Amino acid sequence: MNPIITLTTDFGLKDYYVGAMKGVIFSINPDARIIDISHEIPAHDVFYGAFTLRNLYRYFPEGTIHVAVVDPGVGGKRKPVVVRADRNIFVGPDNGIFTFIYRESKSVKVVEVANSQYVLSNVSSTFHGRDIFAPAAAHLSLGVSVEDLGKRARKPVELPIKEPIVSKNEIIGEFIHEDIFGNLVTNIPSSLLRPESIFFIGKTVVKGLSKSYVDAPKGKLLAVAGSAGFLELSVNRGRASDFIEKSKKLRVKI
Amino acid sequence: MNPIITLTTDFGLKDYYVGAMKGVIFSINPDARIIDISHEIPAHDVFYGAFTLRNLYRYFPEGTIHVAVVDPGVGGKRKPVVVRADRNIFVGPDNGIFTFIYRESKSVKVVEVANSQYVLSNVSSTFHGRDIFAPAAAHLSLGVSVEDLGKRARKPVELPIKEPIVSKNEIIGEFIHEDIFGNLVTNIPSSLLRPESIFFIGKTVVKGLSKSYVDAPKGKLLAVAGSAGFLELSVNRGRASDFIEKSKKLRVKI
Amino acid sequence: MNPIITLTTDFGLKDYYVGAMKGVIFSINPDARIIDISHEIPAHDVFYGAFTLRNLYRYFPEGTIHVAVVDPGVGGKRKPVVVRADRNIFVGPDNGIFTFIYRESKSVKVVEVANSQYVLSNVSSTFHGRDIFAPAAAHLSLGVSVEDLGKRARKPVELPIKEPIVSKNEIIGEFIHEDIFGNLVTNIPSSLLRPESIFFIGKTVVKGLSKSYVDAPKGKLLAVAGSAGFLELSVNRGRASDFIEKSKKLRVKI
Repeated sequence: MNPIITLTTDFGLKDYYVGAMKGVIFSINPDARIIDISHEIPAHDVFYGAFTLRNLYRYFPEGTIHVAVVDPGVGGKRKPVVVRADRNIFVGPDNGIFTFIYRESKSVKVVEVANSQYVLSNVSSTFHGRDIFAPAAAHLSLGVSVEDLGKRARKPVELPIKEPIVSKNEIIGEFIHEDIFGNLVTNIPSSLLRPESIFFIGKTVVKGLSKSYVDAPKGKLLAVAGSAGFLELSVNRGRASDFIEKSKKLRVKI
Repeated sequence: MNPIITLTTDFGLKDYYVGAMKGVIFSINPDARIIDISHEIPAHDVFYGAFTLRNLYRYFPEGTIHVAVVDPGVGGKRKPVVVRADRNIFVGPDNGIFTFIYRESKSVKVVEVANSQYVLSNVSSTFHGRDIFAPAAAHLSLGVSVEDLGKRARKPVELPIKEPIVSKNEIIGEFIHEDIFGNLVTNIPSSLLRPESIFFIGKTVVKGLSKSYVDAPKGKLLAVAGSAGFLELSVNRGRASDFIEKSKKLRVKI
Repeated sequence: MNPIITLTTDFGLKDYYVGAMKGVIFSINPDARIIDISHEIPAHDVFYGAFTLRNLYRYFPEGTIHVAVVDPGVGGKRKPVVVRADRNIFVGPDNGIFTFIYRESKSVKVVEVANSQYVLSNVSSTFHGRDIFAPAAAHLSLGVSVEDLGKRARKPVELPIKEPIVSKNEIIGEFIHEDIFGNLVTNIPSSLLRPESIFFIGKTVVKGLSKSYVDAPKGKLLAVAGSAGFLELSVNRGRASDFIEKSKKLRVKI
């Protein structure tokens, strides 16, 4: 039993930050199984990190330890925490990065990392990824329990999630994510849509829900049920973000 | 026997796509050995992905499973396939990404992935990397055979490859790749060149084949036998792409 | 005993270079444990690579093999080397990339890689990462000793390191690194500073050493003890590099 440790950060790959975290993990658990998820979360964008985690943790085996460090408040008042949510474990700052985990799990326990036995001996105020989160994850991977790390944290931080406004014939939603292909992901669950739905963004109108990105001529805007379970606005071999202002609301006639 | 699974995609590392693929693989084969090759293939650039695969698969041990997902046609008519080529296995869309593999292998078998036992239970139309290719690769790594995944695919897609025109004293070639250093890779095999060859690109002339990138003064354009087996135009500590228009033909006096 | 092999390069992740190195390593040691550190070292920036290595190697377990390839002189006169420094092993070009390792280790042995048994059979002049450094590292991971690879290299190359000028009341330092967040790292050890220190860069003055990045209002320039052990100039949720010219000297009133 040597669980996988995943890493999701906004540290990029230019600097030594990710490397130092990996070194700390291996120095505690030489047989650690570290898997990179993303180190390209936009700097300080906690929601982006939270949404990324949401879309992938469910695909990993039970017992996986997910380390998520998007941590603009490092060294300040925000707590370092470890979370057991159903059968998965999460390690990171208590700044809302685990918002979706809390919402989607039946059983959640959040513990503030306080036991100095499981962090580096000199904890800096500028790099808790290396000094707290990496060693905590490594110890957890060796069988240390979440409860051993500290006391229960009360009222863990949750980000406000913008919910779509759903009425009988209409949904008002928002764009919450732009992916690398320029697909614009909304907060509207695909399950609410019908093949005949019509989509309005400012003066732009898209008629009907496409089955895939290629279910429209090249370069044309389309609406599709995206892989995260939400409505996406996309362009076949193009970028929807070149056509649509992300800040606008989206109105759907169901 | 736990073969390596390599991943080559145009998904970037900002989004959850690569992470979800890794999670799916581990949930099927908890001992999987996943190796990132590249997730920075330019979006939708199937030739770029094909050329990348060509230049690296031969260095991996026999039995390696290479997953390659540059897949602008996802959800459309293009088939998901698994390929056994000599002693290696490839998984991805049938859109030409395996062109060089087909050409360079003695024995090739292409199978359309159709057996629902080896893919996720809800296959989306927007993310076959997660829903088809990752689970297929994971099952293959557990010993499932290529033939178990489906029936033979007839006429797998091949990209047209631009061949150089070789005459007795002259070769006309093209630039097919620009690397991260600005080196411009041509389609002319280095084996056809001599130390005294002369290279013409528009009005630019380069005399003689250099032995390495530093076999010319700093900042000067040079021609060199590149590591992929092709002629490259390069600049010592600079970028050849700043000096040369990639769209131009290259003429070589052998 | 299967030591970790780390990879630090300026090869980026767009090209096949890193993938080919990994393939070569696995073909020699099928059980190799390869860990990516960074492939985003700025092209040809040997100092950047050296500084990155410095900041992470100490966190890895003893016996780790660190491959570092920032190698603008590949194929020229610079030697390929293997270094045993205290309990760690380093593989790369003799161009100064191991400068900090030499300075910080008690015992250093540098060997020129010359034994053809431990490199690929056709060594190119353009890609020693694949042809020399990857196979050498793989053989070392199998138990081949540093001494087996060749003869001792005399006078390994060291980069000139800019030291701060320290007097009784004042330190004159320089900026040596900009990280992904726009933090500007100096060459002044944090241990020389006091909470009341004052920092002068051109006409800009920063009073007092902050405890963390959030120990100042948002958007305000601050000075902090960075995680690499050096003074950093930073902006709470902003980029210090937008406020300060990196080329300027920094004066500190202790």
